[in-house]
Amino acid sequence: MAAPVWSVDPRTGKQREQVAAEATADEVDRTVRAAHAARESLADRTVRAAFLRTAADLLEEAGEQVVEAADAETALGPGRLTGELARTTYQLRSFADIVDQGAFLDILIDHADPDAGPVPRPDLRRYKVPLGVVAVYSASNFPLAFSVPGGDTASALAAGCPLVVKAHPDHPATSELCAAVLRRAAARHGLPEDVVGLVHGFEAGVALVQHPLIAAAGFTGSVRGGRALFDAAAARPTPIPFHGELGSLNPVVITEAAASERAEQIGTGLAGSVTLGVGQFCVKPGLVLAPVGDPGDRLLKSLTSAVSETAAGVLLDSRMREAFVAGVRARAALPEVESPVTPGESGEHAVSAGFLVVPAARLADGGDHGLLMEECFGPVTVVARYADPAEVSAVLGTLPGNLTATVHLGEDEAAESDGPAAALLAELTPLAGRVLVNGWPTGVAVAPAQHHGGPYPATTSTSTSVGGTAIERWLRPVVFQGTPAALLPPELRDDNPYGLPRRVNGRPEA
Amino acid sequence: MAAPVWSVDPRTGKQREQVAAEATADEVDRTVRAAHAARESLADRTVRAAFLRTAADLLEEAGEQVVEAADAETALGPGRLTGELARTTYQLRSFADIVDQGAFLDILIDHADPDAGPVPRPDLRRYKVPLGVVAVYSASNFPLAFSVPGGDTASALAAGCPLVVKAHPDHPATSELCAAVLRRAAARHGLPEDVVGLVHGFEAGVALVQHPLIAAAGFTGSVRGGRALFDAAAARPTPIPFHGELGSLNPVVITEAAASERAEQIGTGLAGSVTLGVGQFCVKPGLVLAPVGDPGDRLLKSLTSAVSETAAGVLLDSRMREAFVAGVRARAALPEVESPVTPGESGEHAVSAGFLVVPAARLADGGDHGLLMEECFGPVTVVARYADPAEVSAVLGTLPGNLTATVHLGEDEAAESDGPAAALLAELTPLAGRVLVNGWPTGVAVAPAQHHGGPYPATTSTSTSVGGTAIERWLRPVVFQGTPAALLPPELRDDNPYGLPRRVNGRPEA
Repeated sequence: MAAPVWSVDPRTGKQREQVAAEATADEVDRTVRAAHAARESLADRTVRAAFLRTAADLLEEAGEQVVEAADAETALGPGRLTGELARTTYQLRSFADIVDQGAFLDILIDHADPDAGPVPRPDLRRYKVPLGVVAVYSASNFPLAFSVPGGDTASALAAGCPLVVKAHPDHPATSELCAAVLRRAAARHGLPEDVVGLVHGFEAGVALVQHPLIAAAGFTGSVRGGRALFDAAAARPTPIPFHGELGSLNPVVITEAAASERAEQIGTGLAGSVTLGVGQFCVKPGLVLAPVGDPGDRLLKSLTSAVSETAAGVLLDSRMREAFVAGVRARAALPEVESPVTPGESGEHAVSAGFLVVPAARLADGGDHGLLMEECFGPVTVVARYADPAEVSAVLGTLPGNLTATVHLGEDEAAESDGPAAALLAELTPLAGRVLVNGWPTGVAVAPAQHHGGPYPATTSTSTSVGGTAIERWLRPVVFQGTPAALLPPELRDDNPYGLPRRVNGRPEA
Repeated sequence: MAAPVWSVDPRTGKQREQVAAEATADEVDRTVRAAHAARESLADRTVRAAFLRTAADLLEEAGEQVVEAADAETALGPGRLTGELARTTYQLRSFADIVDQGAFLDILIDHADPDAGPVPRPDLRRYKVPLGVVAVYSASNFPLAFSVPGGDTASALAAGCPLVVKAHPDHPATSELCAAVLRRAAARHGLPEDVVGLVHGFEAGVALVQHPLIAAAGFTGSVRGGRALFDAAAARPTPIPFHGELGSLNPVVITEAAASERAEQIGTGLAGSVTLGVGQFCVKPGLVLAPVGDPGDRLLKSLTSAVSETAAGVLLDSRMREAFVAGVRARAALPEVESPVTPGESGEHAVSAGFLVVPAARLADGGDHGLLMEECFGPVTVVARYADPAEVSAVLGTLPGNLTATVHLGEDEAAESDGPAAALLAELTPLAGRVLVNGWPTGVAVAPAQHHGGPYPATTSTSTSVGGTAIERWLRPVVFQGTPAALLPPELRDDNPYGLPRRVNGRPEA
């Protein structure tokens, strides 16, 4: 008998309903084969784009039900979830636009030329083709935007890849609901519903990444889970690309000048970013380097006041709650760590926000204090007080890779192109995929130029899971050599029937 | 005592000279650290481009010496090696052009826009930055173009990455000579010579891919060696991209019509492609599907005659010679395999070319005949005779990934866009990264649109090791959010001082 999958209310810890059963190995196999069998149906870009737009429309139509289901399972609240739904439908439509524009096909054409190199050059025409069936591992903290109808799904379908989602156990009902919407959208355009599959269960997730017909995987989650799946993907007889977003500390450096000029604004802004969504964002600032002395003291005072006023919140599940409470406790117990506002349990199911303070010199020491440089999921951050810029450099030099790195600068610093601020940015850039000045990393805009990824363990590849270029993960190039016009894909024919952007003989086509 | 590294003459099997010693773990560490310390020197694109051009110039100046050294170690002959040198210098200069053009920076700029999405969009400016020190594993069969001064080196330097080459043991003297040339070219432009490092030895190669400061690797070689290094790269505490080109059968399908129209031409062309460079090309056609019946018989007759006339040749080393002889023997011993021209030993150090013939139906059976679908390095190919198109499909359906897949078509077939030829191309495209019509896969043009890669085991990633986009392997994106103009890299400033190609708000910049 397959294990039942329950939807659980994190506000009470009670089981709401049995949603499904964990997929057996046979069921995973059938789901992947069905998706694989449906792959040719996605070959037409016009249909793909229309399908993505219909998916957005139908999600909006089902919006009330979707938000209600997600709120019941995640406790994220209708306000946040309504916003996340808007982000999700915007993302689906953005990828439809990207499909229409066709720049992602990355078309390169070199005409035959006897004089183009040391040997005569044949006619070469390259574009990108979909990799095949994609496995998508959903995140807990975005039950829509990084789950069944989220960025991995939207970008995979945009690329022309069917997919099978491994549902996150924290929101199985929302996952079923959204998968049904996506499948209905597919049917509206005459596509097999199996272009989107859904499986539940830990074992099913492992079987999925090992399935011979899975061609690539996208993952958002913990370092431990992501690394295990990355290892499984690499150990396959035929290894596959594994695009995992695993963990990030998201360091923030606040200069002396910035603190002097805007202590209160920065303290309040930091509190907002740390406690947003009960601290359950992968880009939550987890380590803040703030100066010792009066401006830094004022900043901490403001942070203390803002964090203290933050209402307690419910985490996504009880396991996370336990990990948060234990994680904070272990960090707070380290020598020279203070907790001006102690984060922790609040009643039976909620947690309260807070922060820890430590001398920056202790962090650079390594040893037990290394724990403070590991992500702690939930509403807490670590403020490391530094006495001079060398201490900042010492800490930055010990950090692993991150999704983001932020600096808050004084007004004069920000205007000087070769001063200490430039040096600081040069130190932060190798650490992250997104570098922010005078902002907060929470809030990852869906935009063509966005990059949501970074050196390991932020991501397991150099790719992004947000923004227009996320589509690149699911494609591979193919070049046709000496191929008669009649047999070329239309995208590569001289007459360019779809008017796609192309580079010809190394230059943009006129 | 470190083991000595000898240069060996494959024409005699005799040691020529002791070139170097195998690098100890300490030496690998020092070499990588020196390269890492030199990385900032490559930040200036103008200097990088000039360095690549000077490297080409100095290689040409040393051309006679380089060709002589390479011929003495590889027996590839001065003609071929002079051509390979021209290819190598052309490749270095092509990457200099690519650096100048700057399209590889893949610049995307989205202006801040309160209305661009469901939430206000911040200012986002993305480009690509070099990954860090690259490890390059040289191939045996191209002592220049896929070795020290080859495509991995040229593309890594073009991307701004210093590198350490693991020399191939078949041409250590050539490797030392070319590394010295590259280092001299660096010095001419005031760059530290350590932007190019060189190590010898099997153990050194393993230590290299495991070194914490190595950020990515490029490899060309065998499935066994490449997979071992791929596994080591994936198992690191911080995994790194491993772009390996491992092995390829390069199937060729000859239709009944093509054989009817051009049996002799195809037979002769095939012989030329199979025996070129003594069959030591990664794109050598290793499996040819030819029809039964008279046109196919004529094709084989022509192949027999051309292969029989091919002079015996010396393979790159004695280990390869043994593997070739044993590999041919094992294949020829399989049931229903005939060898019209038996390839094998020719004198003490050379081998003669030949081919095997088998009914296609045996291949699709699987079992022992699966050996015929594994690459056999050297001047041999397997011709599988098919009775009908279904047998072709059955064989193609069992093939692993390839660098190339080729079809020879009749004139009418090639002109019909929705006939059997189109169906055949659709079957071949999923198998390879380069699809050829009426050509031969040997000869991989260096060109912007070239793609030299394919589904595993052809390559371990979706990337290419030849052509303009090979540079993409050594870069990662970084996006700057809300960053003041003074602190932005010049490439991302509004005034676009270098006139680089950029996409702004999702569209090419005017």
